[in-house]
Amino acid sequence: MTKEQLFEQIKAKGSYLCVGLDTDLKKIPEHLLKEEDPIFAFNKQIIDATADYCVAYKPNIAFYEAMGAKGWESLQKTLEYIPNDIFTIADAKRGDIGNTSSLYARAFFENMDFDSVTVAPYMGADSVKPFLEFDGKWVILLALTSNAGGQDFQVLNVGGEQLFEKVLDKSQEWGDDSNLMFVVGATRAELLEKVREHAPNNFLLVPGVGAQGGSLEEVSKYGMNKQCGLLVNSSRGIIYASKGEDFADVARAEAKKLRDEMSVYLEQYL
Amino acid sequence: MTKEQLFEQIKAKGSYLCVGLDTDLKKIPEHLLKEEDPIFAFNKQIIDATADYCVAYKPNIAFYEAMGAKGWESLQKTLEYIPNDIFTIADAKRGDIGNTSSLYARAFFENMDFDSVTVAPYMGADSVKPFLEFDGKWVILLALTSNAGGQDFQVLNVGGEQLFEKVLDKSQEWGDDSNLMFVVGATRAELLEKVREHAPNNFLLVPGVGAQGGSLEEVSKYGMNKQCGLLVNSSRGIIYASKGEDFADVARAEAKKLRDEMSVYLEQYL
Repeated sequence: MTKEQLFEQIKAKGSYLCVGLDTDLKKIPEHLLKEEDPIFAFNKQIIDATADYCVAYKPNIAFYEAMGAKGWESLQKTLEYIPNDIFTIADAKRGDIGNTSSLYARAFFENMDFDSVTVAPYMGADSVKPFLEFDGKWVILLALTSNAGGQDFQVLNVGGEQLFEKVLDKSQEWGDDSNLMFVVGATRAELLEKVREHAPNNFLLVPGVGAQGGSLEEVSKYGMNKQCGLLVNSSRGIIYASKGEDFADVARAEAKKLRDEMSVYLEQYL
Repeated sequence: MTKEQLFEQIKAKGSYLCVGLDTDLKKIPEHLLKEEDPIFAFNKQIIDATADYCVAYKPNIAFYEAMGAKGWESLQKTLEYIPNDIFTIADAKRGDIGNTSSLYARAFFENMDFDSVTVAPYMGADSVKPFLEFDGKWVILLALTSNAGGQDFQVLNVGGEQLFEKVLDKSQEWGDDSNLMFVVGATRAELLEKVREHAPNNFLLVPGVGAQGGSLEEVSKYGMNKQCGLLVNSSRGIIYASKGEDFADVARAEAKKLRDEMSVYLEQYL
């Protein structure tokens, strides 16, 4: 998917919502457990319920990998079920030496047909570039993550800048805003402004809004650029909003709520 | 497996060799392709041929993941086939927020019974700690990698030290030499000495000897500690030493060659 196609979809839906499919047998409604593939049964209903209000789905690969071979089948079925015009993110945080990253890239872009993969930067150029060699596919590189441990290395002072700023700069020697996005967990205004100094045109994937409590308004105000440039993720706040038989309806309502808020910000800040 | 058990095995075999199982359908001998599970058929013969001379096996998870559900089955069978007294490394380079890292840890330590997983440090404490919570299991944390891109961020100057030194120090607040090893691709003496200043007692997993051309002698001389403290990996140099029907015999001969050299260094530097 191109940046323009993604932006078109954002305008059409009035939404830059990404729904995280962190699907866990222990958390899905009990009545689904009797299905042959409960994970897919859950995802299918979540997708049906939320596709009108989101522009991206992000399966967290760990949840599927934890289930072994069966999990990969559920993932494959889920991916095939997602409507073609919706952006798909394999949240895998991969990153290895060149020939190994090539294998991961093939796994997610060819064997499966994801639009993008999240990638870790620590191993540098040859760990990231293999993912950038696929036409119409995207790397979403970890820059500044929202977890507590994000403070351990990402914000260290490197010659007057923080490490994540180096990651933002260096990686733009390998790709550009047509194939490179960044994970930015910052909801604080000054950090988002700093990110936008280094990456004015790239899309940012922002986790941590919703159940994790970040402010959607702050993110939108300080993070939005002329082509929106934001994908804001919510996982648990949508998919586990209800544990009852009404889970899909409640998920739809939660997604709509976020979409409605986003529509306002798109009017205001775009 | 405990550090002591690993050291016992190293002394018994006169070897600190790790064999990398980077098993690729495109590279294994043709006559195996008619087998029902060619990947496992290959690994089985490699394990039979080399188990006398190595103390660890390291399947590179990308190679299995690239084959989808079938690959995970080959991986599971391979793991079960590895003799119990040999250390096993899931070379997966995972790392994510806490609850996701917990899932990866369960995938590799419980669903499969690996002794260790390679983990990426960029996301900090809560991405690494979940892997450290399993008794008898190990994190092998990326510190200084041998690929070209390892120079992009890992050696940046952070307050007078290089980033990988910060990783070595910080991570030892989370684990110790009984559950934490480091990936150190350095074959240059001064870098290995620097690593040993920060991590005198931890085991180091050293890739890049063999096909990638590092010097085993340098690594052994500057990297060895009182309990050996080294696992030196060779993948392609052993498993693809021959593409013929004799591949297992040739792999055995290559593994023996490295073991014989290691035995000398164990006498010399231990």
